[in-house]
Amino acid sequence: MGIGMEDALKHKCGVFGIYGHKDAARLAYFGLYALQHRGQESAGIAVSDRKSVNCFKGMGLVSDVFNEENLKDLKGDIAIGHVRYSTSGSTVIENAQPFSVKYSEGFISVAHNGNLVNTCKLRRRLERDGSIFQTSMDSEVIVHLIASENGSFEERLVASLKKIKGAFSITILTEDKLVAARDPNGFRPLCIGKFAGAYCIASETSALDLIEATYVRDVEPGEIVIVDGKGIRSLKPFPKVKPAQCIFEYIYFARPDSSIYGASVYNARKELGRQLAREHPVKADRVLPVPDSGTCAALGFTEESGIPFEMGIIRNHYIGRTFIQPSQRIRNLGVKIKLNPVKEIIDNKRIVLIEDSIVRGTTSRVRIKTLREAGAKEVHMRVTCPPIINPCFFGIDFPTKKELIASSRSIEKIRKFIGLDSLKYLSLEGMLDAMPVDKTSFCTACFTGDYPIAIEDEQHKFILEEKFLKRRKV
Amino acid sequence: MGIGMEDALKHKCGVFGIYGHKDAARLAYFGLYALQHRGQESAGIAVSDRKSVNCFKGMGLVSDVFNEENLKDLKGDIAIGHVRYSTSGSTVIENAQPFSVKYSEGFISVAHNGNLVNTCKLRRRLERDGSIFQTSMDSEVIVHLIASENGSFEERLVASLKKIKGAFSITILTEDKLVAARDPNGFRPLCIGKFAGAYCIASETSALDLIEATYVRDVEPGEIVIVDGKGIRSLKPFPKVKPAQCIFEYIYFARPDSSIYGASVYNARKELGRQLAREHPVKADRVLPVPDSGTCAALGFTEESGIPFEMGIIRNHYIGRTFIQPSQRIRNLGVKIKLNPVKEIIDNKRIVLIEDSIVRGTTSRVRIKTLREAGAKEVHMRVTCPPIINPCFFGIDFPTKKELIASSRSIEKIRKFIGLDSLKYLSLEGMLDAMPVDKTSFCTACFTGDYPIAIEDEQHKFILEEKFLKRRKV
Amino acid sequence: MGIGMEDALKHKCGVFGIYGHKDAARLAYFGLYALQHRGQESAGIAVSDRKSVNCFKGMGLVSDVFNEENLKDLKGDIAIGHVRYSTSGSTVIENAQPFSVKYSEGFISVAHNGNLVNTCKLRRRLERDGSIFQTSMDSEVIVHLIASENGSFEERLVASLKKIKGAFSITILTEDKLVAARDPNGFRPLCIGKFAGAYCIASETSALDLIEATYVRDVEPGEIVIVDGKGIRSLKPFPKVKPAQCIFEYIYFARPDSSIYGASVYNARKELGRQLAREHPVKADRVLPVPDSGTCAALGFTEESGIPFEMGIIRNHYIGRTFIQPSQRIRNLGVKIKLNPVKEIIDNKRIVLIEDSIVRGTTSRVRIKTLREAGAKEVHMRVTCPPIINPCFFGIDFPTKKELIASSRSIEKIRKFIGLDSLKYLSLEGMLDAMPVDKTSFCTACFTGDYPIAIEDEQHKFILEEKFLKRRKV
Amino acid sequence: MGIGMEDALKHKCGVFGIYGHKDAARLAYFGLYALQHRGQESAGIAVSDRKSVNCFKGMGLVSDVFNEENLKDLKGDIAIGHVRYSTSGSTVIENAQPFSVKYSEGFISVAHNGNLVNTCKLRRRLERDGSIFQTSMDSEVIVHLIASENGSFEERLVASLKKIKGAFSITILTEDKLVAARDPNGFRPLCIGKFAGAYCIASETSALDLIEATYVRDVEPGEIVIVDGKGIRSLKPFPKVKPAQCIFEYIYFARPDSSIYGASVYNARKELGRQLAREHPVKADRVLPVPDSGTCAALGFTEESGIPFEMGIIRNHYIGRTFIQPSQRIRNLGVKIKLNPVKEIIDNKRIVLIEDSIVRGTTSRVRIKTLREAGAKEVHMRVTCPPIINPCFFGIDFPTKKELIASSRSIEKIRKFIGLDSLKYLSLEGMLDAMPVDKTSFCTACFTGDYPIAIEDEQHKFILEEKFLKRRKV
Repeated sequence: MGIGMEDALKHKCGVFGIYGHKDAARLAYFGLYALQHRGQESAGIAVSDRKSVNCFKGMGLVSDVFNEENLKDLKGDIAIGHVRYSTSGSTVIENAQPFSVKYSEGFISVAHNGNLVNTCKLRRRLERDGSIFQTSMDSEVIVHLIASENGSFEERLVASLKKIKGAFSITILTEDKLVAARDPNGFRPLCIGKFAGAYCIASETSALDLIEATYVRDVEPGEIVIVDGKGIRSLKPFPKVKPAQCIFEYIYFARPDSSIYGASVYNARKELGRQLAREHPVKADRVLPVPDSGTCAALGFTEESGIPFEMGIIRNHYIGRTFIQPSQRIRNLGVKIKLNPVKEIIDNKRIVLIEDSIVRGTTSRVRIKTLREAGAKEVHMRVTCPPIINPCFFGIDFPTKKELIASSRSIEKIRKFIGLDSLKYLSLEGMLDAMPVDKTSFCTACFTGDYPIAIEDEQHKFILEEKFLKRRKV
Repeated sequence: MGIGMEDALKHKCGVFGIYGHKDAARLAYFGLYALQHRGQESAGIAVSDRKSVNCFKGMGLVSDVFNEENLKDLKGDIAIGHVRYSTSGSTVIENAQPFSVKYSEGFISVAHNGNLVNTCKLRRRLERDGSIFQTSMDSEVIVHLIASENGSFEERLVASLKKIKGAFSITILTEDKLVAARDPNGFRPLCIGKFAGAYCIASETSALDLIEATYVRDVEPGEIVIVDGKGIRSLKPFPKVKPAQCIFEYIYFARPDSSIYGASVYNARKELGRQLAREHPVKADRVLPVPDSGTCAALGFTEESGIPFEMGIIRNHYIGRTFIQPSQRIRNLGVKIKLNPVKEIIDNKRIVLIEDSIVRGTTSRVRIKTLREAGAKEVHMRVTCPPIINPCFFGIDFPTKKELIASSRSIEKIRKFIGLDSLKYLSLEGMLDAMPVDKTSFCTACFTGDYPIAIEDEQHKFILEEKFLKRRKV
Repeated sequence: MGIGMEDALKHKCGVFGIYGHKDAARLAYFGLYALQHRGQESAGIAVSDRKSVNCFKGMGLVSDVFNEENLKDLKGDIAIGHVRYSTSGSTVIENAQPFSVKYSEGFISVAHNGNLVNTCKLRRRLERDGSIFQTSMDSEVIVHLIASENGSFEERLVASLKKIKGAFSITILTEDKLVAARDPNGFRPLCIGKFAGAYCIASETSALDLIEATYVRDVEPGEIVIVDGKGIRSLKPFPKVKPAQCIFEYIYFARPDSSIYGASVYNARKELGRQLAREHPVKADRVLPVPDSGTCAALGFTEESGIPFEMGIIRNHYIGRTFIQPSQRIRNLGVKIKLNPVKEIIDNKRIVLIEDSIVRGTTSRVRIKTLREAGAKEVHMRVTCPPIINPCFFGIDFPTKKELIASSRSIEKIRKFIGLDSLKYLSLEGMLDAMPVDKTSFCTACFTGDYPIAIEDEQHKFILEEKFLKRRKV
Repeated sequence: MGIGMEDALKHKCGVFGIYGHKDAARLAYFGLYALQHRGQESAGIAVSDRKSVNCFKGMGLVSDVFNEENLKDLKGDIAIGHVRYSTSGSTVIENAQPFSVKYSEGFISVAHNGNLVNTCKLRRRLERDGSIFQTSMDSEVIVHLIASENGSFEERLVASLKKIKGAFSITILTEDKLVAARDPNGFRPLCIGKFAGAYCIASETSALDLIEATYVRDVEPGEIVIVDGKGIRSLKPFPKVKPAQCIFEYIYFARPDSSIYGASVYNARKELGRQLAREHPVKADRVLPVPDSGTCAALGFTEESGIPFEMGIIRNHYIGRTFIQPSQRIRNLGVKIKLNPVKEIIDNKRIVLIEDSIVRGTTSRVRIKTLREAGAKEVHMRVTCPPIINPCFFGIDFPTKKELIASSRSIEKIRKFIGLDSLKYLSLEGMLDAMPVDKTSFCTACFTGDYPIAIEDEQHKFILEEKFLKRRKV
């Protein structure tokens, strides 16, 4: 995988939060800048000046959405921020987050990373009680729940989060509080940092690094962290369940310079590469990563195998959002425009290509063609995870089961389809052994089909989104 | 008044609706085009394809917001549209209408012209029951009410409209219905037209003219009109009250080529001018209108007085949204850039200047200066309505009482402030006599202070708006 | 005529200049603002800080092109400005003016209103001597001539202007001089004003009015005015020829609040209307202008005839640049969207419609249809000039001879084509009699075919433009 | 170096040309896409349809400037294209290329990579003969020369190119010809490809790869290649001089997947790294490249030294054009936002950092700080070229001599300034030995001060540019 638009897994989002710094919105801006890889469709920041909540959102990259002028208007010392991923067609400002409203107790703003699996049920119940919905976002459901509960904010919050099922790493902002919460399974990462007396929350530690915050610890699965005038406190209102942290954050999503679930992503990837070399050795002249996601694993493979590492595929750093189609077909244009092989490194050589994963197989197929055209004598692909055979319902934009090549084809058939001399996937056990943290703490449903929690409303959700995607605004 | 930004009364909006035409969104586009004078801040169209409701909104003029591409996507045969006025600073896409949501019974979209006076009470009650609010718009309150009622759509609709107080001329769209409703007092205009088998609803008849629809009749005060597969039907669920139609639509707001409340605006204005000449004759050489709003009345004044009419102040048709300030002060720049006097017509002449109204008096003051500089020997102002001394709570963007010059100054003091040789206002009785329809059917609260209905939450409303205005999105 | 895009005559441009004011660029901005009716395609200002010349141009209205930021960069005390008209399709920034270059003697910038008739010959000669051309503009030719002459700037200037033939009212800027020049025939207007010690040059006096400059006098036909450190001086290097001032400036182009060729446009138009009433009386109930260009003449017609004046056609002030086409044909949409008749004024009435001119006749035709649909009993058109039968080569964007309806049809046939009860044109003699200045000083070629100077290269010019129009830049 | 804006060397441009393909403009688009690293300020394509030349240019990336619509208008079978680098402030569309004009013999369009050193002399001479200049571009000078010569196009071309001195790798387009020319020293690269019967010209072979053209050969230093209806032919009209190819193309500029001067850039860089390891061995735990420019050399260093290679500094791929400044100073923000160190790789380790070059030293300094903060025990920098002590006049945007850190400081002082444990530069001899082609064929003036040709007008050029940079247009 690695490069593309058409055949890549996508994050559902990144979140950030900060409490107690006069420059809250600006720091949120930098936090989001460091989390930009988790979502490029839209960006938003909400800030509290202790009287009301002010929110600014827009389509595009953080650096496109925000400027001196609009940041200046975001005054206050508590802020949350959000970046959202892009799917073709659904570029709707309504679905940008944070989602901000006024309800009986004041203002509330929510930024959500993850995906709930009982949204439709909850919406039906809320609608039955008179709620109206403007978007298809889970954030809107969460806010409705909080508004429809009784009691103090904290009571409402806990009651609401107990009702939702699925993946949520969220930051919540009110006039005087910053909340961070992670679902009981801990599907998506979320960490706590400290910076000049202020508390920060971020999806990944690289956001802390940029603003020079110190990593304190992860928000634990099932933990609700509340920061307000009384300091920081922790609630753990959920029944304890087996953690199910997304292993794909280590394999592909997170930045290699981040720590996730308490351990280095870079090192985890290198170990995946080493393990791959141990499990599936091959005689070859060169180890090539698919940049940039395969680079660390390729270095690990080289370390274990002794086969020299080369950066034999070059990434073009000036890829625009779209490119024009030539009238005469240029073969493999979409792939070549992003990643061009270095002929001199490949010609007449036996190549081991390190991929993080194979989704539909179509991108891999054209990539291998470009290597063959560059003269590769043999191409052996090594993949740093087992075959993906099941969709994800917890926050990754996987294709449907039907589109996943490994769900219906044998490895041998995939090898032929892609045009490889050999194709080997890392074993489930091997992958888990390579992990830097407790190997029983992961969700591996995309490989095994063992979903940590039941999916209640998959079908309806897609219909819902489709309906709402038709409503646009500029 | 007439020209400006800084010292003009502003509409709160214009609405349009159409049922039963395959080209519904396009016809709504033209309907809004003809209603553009009622609001230039934002424009939106919602359309039903009988399965769901699709809405597109944007900031700016109708012709800026819509293009072939986005209109093509608005498929369906029922549509409503909305234009919203502009106040400096609050250009927020969230407040653009129609307001569209999904609730328990399906999709609903509302476009509102007018202003409710019990919004805050209703919001507090709704919030107490768990509702959340994203905007400060009355439309959102109306939708919440409909969603929180029980029974059929029609039952919910009637129950909801019974709960709101104030001015509403609204169009509502569901998957299979077009609704038009006018509050019991009939504050703002709303009419029904017919076009190629389709029913239309519009704030003014000029919108019907443009698309070649025939005027059928006005929606009556207190009437709810529902158009659906069963045809058109009328509900009158409200207790009968004295009508209180906005007289300012005749004086200033409506297009002169429209009919309002069943009679011609052009003729009404001419009669105001005639009445003014009868009440307040003056010896002068020339009658000049403040273009364009004073033109018809000036023609009437000329007709009655025999003093020649001249178009002695020329309007610049290329006024941009803003202009640069010169570093060295140019006197009266803001006024002159829009309206320039014709020296040769004014020099050494006694001028009667016909104004529709005086709000703060500041624009009139600089306008008179420019006439003096052009050589006017005498300047007599005649105003086509009585002094405005009270704010409007029913859909006109009046300044507060304090800012209304006539609320605290005598006519003589206003005359001096503006720098006139004489200043005469039309009397209340004279104004009502000039009206082409039943003179007891009007709201004259801005002149008399006799508000047709009690204002429940003025104070809170402004605070509410201010809070929400801070939340922006691009 | 009056309204439109498709069937209106268009100016070629407006020019402005100022010498000796620290806020030169800002004052040029306001001067252009007042001249915006002379050109809406592009706007530009060049300014000298005595060291070099700085120029900023852009597509669109003056208020679109300039903002605080780019005006701030235009430092200096001498400036010239230009607005350019819009023709569909040729929106090319290359053709925006002022045209600014560096040549052997320093910087030079030229803004041109008018049209040369020996451009192609000059270009061929210049190209033969090695010149290169980037645009199809006459300004570029003028600059090339100045650069290729010898001697002092003044010598070069005079020698160059002697070589060009046709219409030119130009302003020229160098590091230390402001030049204004008008061709020997004086085709296009150009006047001198004074403001706080600074000299101004403008196409029309309304530009002087806005910045509160005093009108001094017109630049005379054949005069070159140079303003520099030594004061203002005048050169008259051309052999004296009969003046040939464009009469259409009085009939249609100039703002009614301007003085042109030393006399009021408003009064000239009124007199045209009076003359029309004397020449072509008619029994009717109402005199209606086609707004806004027919308004003054209609007032004159009313004065002479005693038939009441009504503003019976209402202009929509919110016309965007384009509008969407409806899928189902709405009759006369293009006309109605801009000008809507007031039914109550027209129904069952005999109408005299005052037009400034008829070009192709197609717009008039649909306009008359809308009046008939509004119930007009009779429609009599009176035109304030004779039939236009010849194209203009001196700065007006006339259609070709073939497209001019009067060039091939009798008045009776035009009457039938347009659908009138009667159609009368003002006679040539009547038109000239109505003029406020020496009636032998006008160019009437579009009516008579007597071109004041021979056209040398009409054919080639169009080919030239077509070639260059294909070169675009954003 | 590598990343940044503030402290990086910049290309002056990339050029492309194609003859004989119906889809010429589209192929030029892709050619420029692959050359985007050579210039990001502006992009332009000129195309000939055999009758005239049509040119479209814009500010920004190739993918920003061009879209389906404007490419569709660029019809023809011969095209040239250009990308231009960005310097802060001078974003002026006038300086975008190709530069296209009409002269006596027809249309001509020029795209230039390089820098002439006798521009001012030539301009003065041309101005003396009457030429006018609109830009500060060398391209404009070249076109003026061609226009002012006599004889056939070929004669004019040769005579003109003989007059210019300095670096030029240009493509020229006329109605029926494509020309490619390289100055006698061959300062900048230029190669010929073939594609489906069409000839291509490109700055680097990666542009040929993308459109699947086959590399034929380089345009030789001093060669003019003309492609027209008679096929391809070669002129060598210049006296033979010693080649002086820019060695920095190998060190830093060219894409690693390109071949330059006939040999692989990737391999050249690896050999530089090996040579560096041989010349300046060091005891260390890890070799880290400054991505992406140092990567290949770091792999070579690892190969030779045996010290493990790690991708220990991570590049953020979502860097916008600007970022907001935080109100509270975040240390090293500008560097960290682009390149973040991986703590786990660096902590407590001895690091060898491979840089391609050091310009001002300021970026290196903050980069080293971030490594120290990440825990590096020792940091040894190895640079793949000798100290840069002289500016470049042949097409690289070097700072002035004064700003080059090595021009006034000893290596030891630089080491201290940057904060290194050791700093070693590759020797001149070592660098040349590592080159894959004749080591006497390079320009090494920036290291040695031995400029291959005399600089005639350095001083004036900067003044010229500064003057013209002030003239802007949107």
